[in-house]
Amino acid sequence: MGTPMTATVTPIRREAQPSLDPIMALVAADMNAVNSVILARMQSDVPLIPELAGHLIAGGGKRMRPMLTLACAKLLDYAGERHHKLAATVEFIHTATLLHDDVVDQSGLRRGRSTANMIWGNAASVLVGDFLFSRSFELMVEDGSLRVLRILSNASAVIAEGEVNQLTAQRRIETSEERYLEIITAKTAVLFAAACRIAAVVAEREAAVEDALDQYGRYLGIAFQLVDDVIDYVSDGATMGKDAGDDFRDGKVTLPVILAYARAEAADRDFLREAIEGLRNEDEDLVRATGILRGTGALADTAARARLYAQRAIDALAGFPSGQAKSALIEAAQFAVARAY
Amino acid sequence: MGTPMTATVTPIRREAQPSLDPIMALVAADMNAVNSVILARMQSDVPLIPELAGHLIAGGGKRMRPMLTLACAKLLDYAGERHHKLAATVEFIHTATLLHDDVVDQSGLRRGRSTANMIWGNAASVLVGDFLFSRSFELMVEDGSLRVLRILSNASAVIAEGEVNQLTAQRRIETSEERYLEIITAKTAVLFAAACRIAAVVAEREAAVEDALDQYGRYLGIAFQLVDDVIDYVSDGATMGKDAGDDFRDGKVTLPVILAYARAEAADRDFLREAIEGLRNEDEDLVRATGILRGTGALADTAARARLYAQRAIDALAGFPSGQAKSALIEAAQFAVARAY
Repeated sequence: MGTPMTATVTPIRREAQPSLDPIMALVAADMNAVNSVILARMQSDVPLIPELAGHLIAGGGKRMRPMLTLACAKLLDYAGERHHKLAATVEFIHTATLLHDDVVDQSGLRRGRSTANMIWGNAASVLVGDFLFSRSFELMVEDGSLRVLRILSNASAVIAEGEVNQLTAQRRIETSEERYLEIITAKTAVLFAAACRIAAVVAEREAAVEDALDQYGRYLGIAFQLVDDVIDYVSDGATMGKDAGDDFRDGKVTLPVILAYARAEAADRDFLREAIEGLRNEDEDLVRATGILRGTGALADTAARARLYAQRAIDALAGFPSGQAKSALIEAAQFAVARAY
Repeated sequence: MGTPMTATVTPIRREAQPSLDPIMALVAADMNAVNSVILARMQSDVPLIPELAGHLIAGGGKRMRPMLTLACAKLLDYAGERHHKLAATVEFIHTATLLHDDVVDQSGLRRGRSTANMIWGNAASVLVGDFLFSRSFELMVEDGSLRVLRILSNASAVIAEGEVNQLTAQRRIETSEERYLEIITAKTAVLFAAACRIAAVVAEREAAVEDALDQYGRYLGIAFQLVDDVIDYVSDGATMGKDAGDDFRDGKVTLPVILAYARAEAADRDFLREAIEGLRNEDEDLVRATGILRGTGALADTAARARLYAQRAIDALAGFPSGQAKSALIEAAQFAVARAY
């Protein structure tokens, strides 16, 4: 971030670089089972379906959402296998959303690879997304829990609603911080929350446990998204797997832009408005925008907000017993925000 | 089926023009309840959602699929109200599919009106489609029948698979009649079948009744689609609510094209191939194509196949008691094919 931060009283580790290694190690065996379900259930007699789905699913994502289901199940000492199918379900919903997002955003690069819509076209991305979404519901029905179905069908509706909400906020610099938090809660945090919550359902734990895990996932999702917003202005496609400035060029009003617009001088405000309206989208415009976002402290403060949410996620785990699972979940939250440095 | 089979042969009427009036009258009160559910459940705090969904839902469709659920429930003397929510569910799935279809086909006109993607853009159509699809699952979960969830989630997956299958067959004149029937079964007939089948589920009738209604819906769906294929070459946008030649210009290989290609002389075969490959898509090309399709009897024979399927649909009702509901369902099948004259 360039700006030296003062020491604060926070359990979020600053001295060492937190990583996802502990959570990945925790769920490695379970994740193999989930991967088997994913591979088996993305098959179809129509070859384009596994081809296109495989491009995205095999594309090096962190599988953060199924990982959360598995890690939360470990936290609860769940000994069954139902969570394997349900974690695959969550990943299918996420993958379907990504396929449609890329069509909506006309993205060209995701995780450093060409997006499916660039290779196979928008039509295929829309329809294979629909297939994966339908298949996810089939998997849930096979599991047979109406409670899980309720949680995930509601999450899906909220996600779609959030996507439309974001679409209508697109290129509107007046978007408030509150509305933006609503949008990313719906777009990202709700599926993180559901992924964690269903672990409590399969483990047949009480409502308070469900709620605590929901909170952990929800705040973690917000933290991840806010850091992604920062990274979009400071990354390059080669090292971060995402084109810097994607959000900027799409006219997406993210929190760094909202904060900078509130603080910048008149000329810079005009520039930001024009940029978000699509009138300034050259490379040099991105450089100027990033300069404004840094100069006003908007990037640093977005990262600071992300740290607050990560801390809330960690706090939501307070009632759970210490152990490998809890430590791994805590470090995942630390990792989410450490990416912004 | 618990009902004595009658030996009565119900021939497809040719003398009078069959209509949907009887089935619409049969379900009018129920359909009001379904419309209330549809209107209530397409609402959202994001105004674009009811705006866009309303454009399509209020756009003058026949609501054929929910009508089938309601009419089949009448056939079984079902006295409850669960089918209202489920019929709305079926319409939401159908509407979501239409929204995505229009993006995939880049259509400009549906039922004589501009398509949503032309007015609001592809992004909005994709995302509102996703919302309606998710909402449909929420409605099913509220109903709480895992059997209904299984039927409709499976139907949704098959529909999406069929859409991808059709996409990969696009512009391929070698598509076989068998593959084409597979595609339209998946794309159209499976949801007709599911709409009918769920009536038997809510009425708690035995598997044979479910299967008979499934067959009725399935064959009716194929008949409707085949007649639509014919109409696409003989209608005009003003009178039929669909642009003539949409399929032709999209390079869609429908049954009339398959039959004509098998029968035409070399020069016409070459022309059809080039047309389907997108090299001949001017208005005069459509005129020539229609001439070939008429001259080879391909349009007439597609209509003849549609009549066979309509007859099979009617035959599937043989075991049900005579009455207003059965007559209305029979006339709906007669109507499906009468449109081709």
